[in-house]
Amino acid sequence: MLINGVQTDRISVLDRGVQYGDGLFETIAIIDGHICLWERHLQRLCDGCERLGIVAPAPEKLFAEATAVINNHPKGVLKIIVTRGVGGRGYRPPIDVQPNRVLYYSPWPDYPEDAWLKGISMRICATRLGINPALAQLKHLNRLEQVLARSEWTDPVIFEGLMFDSNEHAIEGTMSNLFLIKDAVLITPDLSRCGVAGIMRGLIIELAATLNISVVIKDVGLDDLKAADALFISNSLIGIVPVSAFSGQPYSLDSIPSALLNAVDDHMSGRY
Amino acid sequence: MLINGVQTDRISVLDRGVQYGDGLFETIAIIDGHICLWERHLQRLCDGCERLGIVAPAPEKLFAEATAVINNHPKGVLKIIVTRGVGGRGYRPPIDVQPNRVLYYSPWPDYPEDAWLKGISMRICATRLGINPALAQLKHLNRLEQVLARSEWTDPVIFEGLMFDSNEHAIEGTMSNLFLIKDAVLITPDLSRCGVAGIMRGLIIELAATLNISVVIKDVGLDDLKAADALFISNSLIGIVPVSAFSGQPYSLDSIPSALLNAVDDHMSGRY
Repeated sequence: MLINGVQTDRISVLDRGVQYGDGLFETIAIIDGHICLWERHLQRLCDGCERLGIVAPAPEKLFAEATAVINNHPKGVLKIIVTRGVGGRGYRPPIDVQPNRVLYYSPWPDYPEDAWLKGISMRICATRLGINPALAQLKHLNRLEQVLARSEWTDPVIFEGLMFDSNEHAIEGTMSNLFLIKDAVLITPDLSRCGVAGIMRGLIIELAATLNISVVIKDVGLDDLKAADALFISNSLIGIVPVSAFSGQPYSLDSIPSALLNAVDDHMSGRY
Repeated sequence: MLINGVQTDRISVLDRGVQYGDGLFETIAIIDGHICLWERHLQRLCDGCERLGIVAPAPEKLFAEATAVINNHPKGVLKIIVTRGVGGRGYRPPIDVQPNRVLYYSPWPDYPEDAWLKGISMRICATRLGINPALAQLKHLNRLEQVLARSEWTDPVIFEGLMFDSNEHAIEGTMSNLFLIKDAVLITPDLSRCGVAGIMRGLIIELAATLNISVVIKDVGLDDLKAADALFISNSLIGIVPVSAFSGQPYSLDSIPSALLNAVDDHMSGRY
């Protein structure tokens, strides 16, 4: 683990990341020794820093540190955390503050092997996402809503839980974004009020456009989910995973375009 | 500074407090060497731990550590942070996890001396509070909304900013609770959907009842604020501070009951 380029796993308790969750993170797939979708993760991290008023890390330095912590592991997960740093009287961010950057490698999670072929089961979470456009789309460190939502079930058969916002709109899974397919159109929830704008979600939207698949970003309700031909979830580690059962209702996997699945696989192969 | 009873100011980056803001805190006044309102702070901390499913620290141990970090300072601030600890695959909290407790002393903030006598200026923040009953009232570590709200102004004349929720209800200041006085009735916003249930707010509500001052907890809109006879804010360090100007409108300090001010002063004198 590297913190500001130094080998340590300890950070000051006075860091605003600890005090207030005042920072951002990225979770990045390492496949065939390659940092997948690096440019996109870097861009989101920098965009997030700009929105929170945190000085973004220098890209070359960050890449060098990422390469160092991966340390030739062929497969795994790279996590990057950037906090605003130490200082400030209460909530007010100090002017001259040195952000802290943390990078570390962890092993690839043990996802069920047949998730991609057979699909996964998804439940509805009781925990809601609060609406806040000022924080929407950011992958920030305020994640108690996800912690509470993921605490709702222990059944290992359930792979993911779907979170609604306080206005009854379906937004995302606890650790993934949501897509619906209806009449060959790809639909994904609008994230202008809450939710995380996933890197894989962004890639899927772009790839669909190049494959002549219509994409609609809009508010999604429970009725839309029940009427969908297919559902799938996405994130930077799992790519696309079909949902075979949502809230007890079975879904076919047939209408998920194989061209889209193949295109995402290509981008996770380590060649991009 | 003590972390789990050991003198250090460093915590693992893998602590869920850093990763997700998965924890709680208390900010406590030290006056005349006394830990003010200790029992109330302890109770809120334990209640918060129960709601988040974190094992609460043992009261006697916490009090002994608090006494140690205060180290005979007559006046200052004691901060306590309790996190869920290290572990878990992603957002899901692990079952057997050791919470981490952090205690440290910091000097008394340099509040403007005439705040209590002349009142302070308060602005309206553009940053809203997201609605989430699951997190409402908790003094948890997800504080980016407050950080963004407090970033909105630098003018030192403005002491506090008032935050509304996404439904246009006035909830609280960035670091204080809000009270209105209208026709000799004390009004404070309902915190069932968002906001922090301040220790001083709770004390004020109780003291008012003993002083035969009517208290109403309800939704408060901008119109209610404009029509109020007086406004004040409260927290564990400032006690009660009158608002002499809110969003440019002047307010009289006359209708704030002196019996209430005196009762709060008594409770902050170190005798309780």
